[in-house]
Amino acid sequence: MSTQSSHQTWGGRFAEGPDARVAAFTESISFETRLAPYDIQGSIAHAGMLAHIGVLTSAEFETIRDGLLAIDEQIAAGEFPWDPALEDVHMNIEARLTENIGHLGKKLHTARSRNDQVATDVRLWLRDALDHLIGEVDRLRSGLIGLAEREADTIMPGFTHLQVAQPVTFGHHMLAWQAMLARDAERLGQIRARANVLPLGAAALAGTTFAIDRERVAAELGFDGVIDNSLDAVSDRDFAIEFVSASATIMMHLSRFSEELILWMSPAFGFVELPDRYCTGSSIMPQKKNPDVAELTRGKTARVQGHLTALLTLMKGQPLAYNRDNQEDKIPMFDTADTVTTCIALFADMMPHVAVDSAQCREAARRGFATATDLADYLVRAGVAFRDAHEIVGNCVSTAIEQGCDLAELELATLQRFSDAIGGDVYEVLTLEGSVAARDHIGGTAPNQVRAAAARARAALAG
Amino acid sequence: MSTQSSHQTWGGRFAEGPDARVAAFTESISFETRLAPYDIQGSIAHAGMLAHIGVLTSAEFETIRDGLLAIDEQIAAGEFPWDPALEDVHMNIEARLTENIGHLGKKLHTARSRNDQVATDVRLWLRDALDHLIGEVDRLRSGLIGLAEREADTIMPGFTHLQVAQPVTFGHHMLAWQAMLARDAERLGQIRARANVLPLGAAALAGTTFAIDRERVAAELGFDGVIDNSLDAVSDRDFAIEFVSASATIMMHLSRFSEELILWMSPAFGFVELPDRYCTGSSIMPQKKNPDVAELTRGKTARVQGHLTALLTLMKGQPLAYNRDNQEDKIPMFDTADTVTTCIALFADMMPHVAVDSAQCREAARRGFATATDLADYLVRAGVAFRDAHEIVGNCVSTAIEQGCDLAELELATLQRFSDAIGGDVYEVLTLEGSVAARDHIGGTAPNQVRAAAARARAALAG
Amino acid sequence: MSTQSSHQTWGGRFAEGPDARVAAFTESISFETRLAPYDIQGSIAHAGMLAHIGVLTSAEFETIRDGLLAIDEQIAAGEFPWDPALEDVHMNIEARLTENIGHLGKKLHTARSRNDQVATDVRLWLRDALDHLIGEVDRLRSGLIGLAEREADTIMPGFTHLQVAQPVTFGHHMLAWQAMLARDAERLGQIRARANVLPLGAAALAGTTFAIDRERVAAELGFDGVIDNSLDAVSDRDFAIEFVSASATIMMHLSRFSEELILWMSPAFGFVELPDRYCTGSSIMPQKKNPDVAELTRGKTARVQGHLTALLTLMKGQPLAYNRDNQEDKIPMFDTADTVTTCIALFADMMPHVAVDSAQCREAARRGFATATDLADYLVRAGVAFRDAHEIVGNCVSTAIEQGCDLAELELATLQRFSDAIGGDVYEVLTLEGSVAARDHIGGTAPNQVRAAAARARAALAG
Amino acid sequence: MSTQSSHQTWGGRFAEGPDARVAAFTESISFETRLAPYDIQGSIAHAGMLAHIGVLTSAEFETIRDGLLAIDEQIAAGEFPWDPALEDVHMNIEARLTENIGHLGKKLHTARSRNDQVATDVRLWLRDALDHLIGEVDRLRSGLIGLAEREADTIMPGFTHLQVAQPVTFGHHMLAWQAMLARDAERLGQIRARANVLPLGAAALAGTTFAIDRERVAAELGFDGVIDNSLDAVSDRDFAIEFVSASATIMMHLSRFSEELILWMSPAFGFVELPDRYCTGSSIMPQKKNPDVAELTRGKTARVQGHLTALLTLMKGQPLAYNRDNQEDKIPMFDTADTVTTCIALFADMMPHVAVDSAQCREAARRGFATATDLADYLVRAGVAFRDAHEIVGNCVSTAIEQGCDLAELELATLQRFSDAIGGDVYEVLTLEGSVAARDHIGGTAPNQVRAAAARARAALAG
Repeated sequence: MSTQSSHQTWGGRFAEGPDARVAAFTESISFETRLAPYDIQGSIAHAGMLAHIGVLTSAEFETIRDGLLAIDEQIAAGEFPWDPALEDVHMNIEARLTENIGHLGKKLHTARSRNDQVATDVRLWLRDALDHLIGEVDRLRSGLIGLAEREADTIMPGFTHLQVAQPVTFGHHMLAWQAMLARDAERLGQIRARANVLPLGAAALAGTTFAIDRERVAAELGFDGVIDNSLDAVSDRDFAIEFVSASATIMMHLSRFSEELILWMSPAFGFVELPDRYCTGSSIMPQKKNPDVAELTRGKTARVQGHLTALLTLMKGQPLAYNRDNQEDKIPMFDTADTVTTCIALFADMMPHVAVDSAQCREAARRGFATATDLADYLVRAGVAFRDAHEIVGNCVSTAIEQGCDLAELELATLQRFSDAIGGDVYEVLTLEGSVAARDHIGGTAPNQVRAAAARARAALAG
Repeated sequence: MSTQSSHQTWGGRFAEGPDARVAAFTESISFETRLAPYDIQGSIAHAGMLAHIGVLTSAEFETIRDGLLAIDEQIAAGEFPWDPALEDVHMNIEARLTENIGHLGKKLHTARSRNDQVATDVRLWLRDALDHLIGEVDRLRSGLIGLAEREADTIMPGFTHLQVAQPVTFGHHMLAWQAMLARDAERLGQIRARANVLPLGAAALAGTTFAIDRERVAAELGFDGVIDNSLDAVSDRDFAIEFVSASATIMMHLSRFSEELILWMSPAFGFVELPDRYCTGSSIMPQKKNPDVAELTRGKTARVQGHLTALLTLMKGQPLAYNRDNQEDKIPMFDTADTVTTCIALFADMMPHVAVDSAQCREAARRGFATATDLADYLVRAGVAFRDAHEIVGNCVSTAIEQGCDLAELELATLQRFSDAIGGDVYEVLTLEGSVAARDHIGGTAPNQVRAAAARARAALAG
Repeated sequence: MSTQSSHQTWGGRFAEGPDARVAAFTESISFETRLAPYDIQGSIAHAGMLAHIGVLTSAEFETIRDGLLAIDEQIAAGEFPWDPALEDVHMNIEARLTENIGHLGKKLHTARSRNDQVATDVRLWLRDALDHLIGEVDRLRSGLIGLAEREADTIMPGFTHLQVAQPVTFGHHMLAWQAMLARDAERLGQIRARANVLPLGAAALAGTTFAIDRERVAAELGFDGVIDNSLDAVSDRDFAIEFVSASATIMMHLSRFSEELILWMSPAFGFVELPDRYCTGSSIMPQKKNPDVAELTRGKTARVQGHLTALLTLMKGQPLAYNRDNQEDKIPMFDTADTVTTCIALFADMMPHVAVDSAQCREAARRGFATATDLADYLVRAGVAFRDAHEIVGNCVSTAIEQGCDLAELELATLQRFSDAIGGDVYEVLTLEGSVAARDHIGGTAPNQVRAAAARARAALAG
Repeated sequence: MSTQSSHQTWGGRFAEGPDARVAAFTESISFETRLAPYDIQGSIAHAGMLAHIGVLTSAEFETIRDGLLAIDEQIAAGEFPWDPALEDVHMNIEARLTENIGHLGKKLHTARSRNDQVATDVRLWLRDALDHLIGEVDRLRSGLIGLAEREADTIMPGFTHLQVAQPVTFGHHMLAWQAMLARDAERLGQIRARANVLPLGAAALAGTTFAIDRERVAAELGFDGVIDNSLDAVSDRDFAIEFVSASATIMMHLSRFSEELILWMSPAFGFVELPDRYCTGSSIMPQKKNPDVAELTRGKTARVQGHLTALLTLMKGQPLAYNRDNQEDKIPMFDTADTVTTCIALFADMMPHVAVDSAQCREAARRGFATATDLADYLVRAGVAFRDAHEIVGNCVSTAIEQGCDLAELELATLQRFSDAIGGDVYEVLTLEGSVAARDHIGGTAPNQVRAAAARARAALAG
């Protein structure tokens, strides 16, 4: 049942190779080949440094570098014969290198360990993943700002408790979404900065006896510095947790967007329509047009949240320094990157094509006494204390409900029964347009505030 | 950017097919082909029922059945050309059936929907997965019982707070592990019973206008009954949550076992040794022999816990009946089944080969005043109130710490300084063997109680 | 900074008492006093057994019992002076007992430990909590069945993807909710059975040297048996995890109900109305009437899910047997019980008072081509293969969308353009009443099926 | 069953007050009184601005301000009569204000809503909580740096997989802990900056019709700016999630520290000892001294992780803007702040008092072939390729295991059997002191590197 141990790089003290089921259980090739280009990049920088400090000759370095670059090409072309028996990406590449360039390949692993090597690979990968994700988040933000400008005057009901609260503009609502994403982008940038430091040189956990030059390797690989403690370098997975946590928040935002899109596309609301190409149908009900992208995004939010639970739980109980548990950090991290990036990209594609049915939006805002607060504010300006004004308007609303009409449809005499501070000019504040235009301060929903906010957002995005 | 909609089974009302990225986003082929045999099994039962109620002729049924069985064979042989453009397993199979048997294939979907179809597939799959998992749990239990019998007399320290508490027997400890797994097996059985009911007939959500015979389909597929409400049938995912929750508990148990194995294999403890084939080595440190199976199992516990978080979050906000979010139930459920079954199987393989170093175990129990409680009990039997006895022994321990010796090494005169209830026979209760033998009641650690408990466990497993 | 250790029952070997901040950190009095009656119940049973086996005299037992009962009354009256310096409930009660009855009180802790004592207390508490919760779940089920019968004929739209799918009856929908709760009740019952076994006798972890009679204690306390392994008895918290997991599923169900109630109360839907006493208003918007109970229930679902994450994470890394980490099991368990029981009770109060606006429901079902599937089924009965029928109806829907009308409003000639299988009788299947009545099989939405299902549910509840 | 609605500030349109159970269910007084001082601070700033823009007179503002300050004092003195019937902190304070200063109190709520008010209160509270927590984190860092300097030369085994890997210094290990906390502090600072913006002015969700001056209020309250979108201002809870996520990471770090302390205090390791005042004992085992602070911290890590799950799940499904679900954000946020701050503070108290048993540490490092890597590096320097050196050393280790001795105890002739590159000087690299001293580069474990790193850490902390 046990496999030959000849392949294992650690076989010296072992009397038998791993059991076949154990080998299958512990391999990581099936999910980590995306690290290969970063592994090679790191190895070249490491070998360059070894040459610089005299552990390798220049010629040896060049042979190793060229050998690694050849493997890189082979991997990029999809022609590399990954061998699960070699456990992981690092060992596959090193074994192949030794096969190709001979005995010299065995020198590459001097002054490092898989522990600091994999930590380096993952940080290089994450840096790229973050840069790509930030770009997509910004693309979506740009699309939302455009939509906000397009629909700066479109009136829709603002909801609290999913009850009609006050009229807002569709553009204002889109900028609320944009504001969430702006925080997301800022967070991702800070995570990138914190993660962009070099673990290499920590070796297994304690550093190495060779006189290595870590700053040189860091500079070569574009890191902002070196990790200051070798035990921390091989045991830290904070960057993974931070990344997945920030991604879970992004997904939570997208899930809230999705919740609203699904509501707005429901016939009960009918506020927006999506092009057919962003929807799917039903195998049984020929009339269905379903907002699948939004629904799946909502569903995938749960998945990323699950990954966050997994990573925090994973790290919680581990003594320093490296434990094999850590291998389980990759699938959640990689799947999170794939999921959040795809969802953001799809929203960035889709949002500019959202068609808003302004008549439906306006009609929904008209129902539900959306301007009741405006009436209360009117009374305050006429000298009524706010709490009393609130009570008066509450009674007006009760009467309107009884009469089955809107506030603006109550007769002046009826309104005046509740307060003699009400005059004929009250009907102006009861219009939807008057209501939104009156919220004319920074952060308010007035169309000109929306345009100003969109301009600020666009400037922030550019800067 | 949008693909041709000719493949989609719901294209009638759509002006354009899905965007290519949307198609890639919404497909499920890449992860659900394991449902194919169950899909075919369900379709045959469904078609048989349609023939029984006259919607299909017998000949039509036979043609459909044979067509499906041919596809089943092709899939089992790994030769089926899955097409992601056809969205899912159901549509792939149906499209291929229609290709093979012609127009008749289009009749198969009468009186059902993908909503009840996938719910049926998943329940059939889960039933098999549960049966397999229960078998592996029982195999591990059997191995632990054997180990308990083998090590019924081996004395080791029992720990609380990772401090030496009282001596126990290794066999007793193994039966504690077995007891956890016995609860797991019971839970899995109850989940199986609750899940084993038929959703088919719910159609999209409301039932169908055909006079279907659901009991017939249920019996044909080995279900214990039919789901009593069509909305519930397509929206319920309790079975997935229950299964993943029970699996998370199993993994938590395995994680605790792993924690102990890792400690016991650490040189500081040195209680057990595993064959080389269950361990791996280090790429840099030639002397290392690492308990990877235990570490990875501990790590994978976090993963299954993440899946549970994902599933509960997934379902939490959904109105009835079916939403596309639900598609996200499969990866966590499938990965949970794979993970928990593999881990349990590896432990079942590995545990019988654990070698116990009884000398090391005994020596560790000797340190740490493990028989202090026995001394307190001795005093109680001599008429001292327990709380007073506790105080007296505390003082004896302080003295032993000062003298750098064990309790049994204190002179009688010294002991008697703290209580005149202590006589020369006290040294008998201070031996490890005396201590474990004295815990001689059901549930206690005495070797003969361990043997009796092992026999009861074996009988429960058999019955 | 360190407190006097005179109170601590374990002070013998300690040179100083705990630091004041440590004492505050480790105390459990502030959250576990609800265990007090169970602690006393368990102590009386334990003392009775000690008398039975001769460790106490009958008179001693009676004195202890009466002393404990007096304390029980004092606690119930809210007059017990809990002292955080005494660490926990057990020590408070024992110290007070000794104060009241003298030296004899110090004998009570013979042959047990706080480890098995607290495990017993918690299981006794959980049994009561489960019995109460099951009762409330059943009360809600009963209310839903009544509502289902009342609204068995009320037509509303059934949704998938929050798009109108097919007409269903309101009663049918309520029975879907009831079906979820029926599974919940079954699960709770199984958890009760699995938890109802006695830990006492395990002492600290290994059993005791006294010849205890555990079956006697179990019978006295209404347990179904004794826990078979002492290490398992003090380290097992599966029952807490199971309870919180089942509760998280109940809350997930309530969250789904809430999601629907919130939608249905939104003016866009307007399907139902709740009495004012189950709603609250706004401090600024006088017209608001918010579905707070549903919203908070949805929010509290997250809380219980958090508790489940906490408990699984808590247990994952612990070696056997008892570790102080375990103290953290109580707050999540207690808060879960309070939360789920309160939410279920409020729904049980509230649901019978839901007023259904059948006109609004009907109108919403009329929109959205809810009977398109009925048209497809009509075509199948006329000999068209289902997939072809689906395509034909898709085209009919497209035409109706273009003409801005419902399917039933298309002229026969128009319909016949798409299929000559359509005859004048087609309009019968396009009515809402015809559609629901036609789904007339077990599990279907037809009013008479709803009534039959309600009767079955009522019988199951009674049985 | 329904209470009088006279107290509710929103009663105008309501025919009946809330049901008593509903009132108890929805109240928040029981858990949010810690917001009171911030609520008053915000109200005074708001009233000042209202006076500035002419909505209040200066005299009115002064009366309101003085009334609020009087209430603040009453609350601080614990003499404020909180009334749950008044729902929340805001309404309690406002009602009391109106009681005290009369009708004028009813004007305070002009141009705001509870939605923006509570968002402001919470951000003010969080800012203080973060400042306090950062201070405690820094105190712990300072303690660890001191300990690192004290134990810069103390040799202990470095572990990977809980197997002895290579010797490290105790001081180096403490600096790894410090490095984790340095990242934590940086994260908390970034969260503080992002959260420190003003929601007030958003009113219910859309802004207000009054010409408010939000920048003035922001400056008055020490905010860095105003939130740019009113919908975002009342619906955003990112700051809560970020805070709890960063806290979960801090707790995960503390849990890893705890895991190590618990191991190191176990007799099997015996590396460190804690003063009695940081430990507790056992009710049954007189000899026990348990590391309760570490264990409870490990347990409480699970609790904070549960809160994170709760908050993400809470927000996931909510459409904009405010929903009552949000009320459930407070308990997790408050409990997280309490838990993480207490745990950090206890560690800051405790760590300087850790006594290290350097003899035990050294002995443990001596076992387990900790210098095997040094031998491999020796061979590399002698010209052997690293992979070949690794193999040679593996064989040396096997021989040493067979002979039951350490590497340094193998005879030169024996060593030379495996490689003729081994000379008499090999024994120098096999000593523990030689091994740690040789890891002499930035990040390495050499004592002088530890001292330099401690100095850098101290400088970073000061700066």
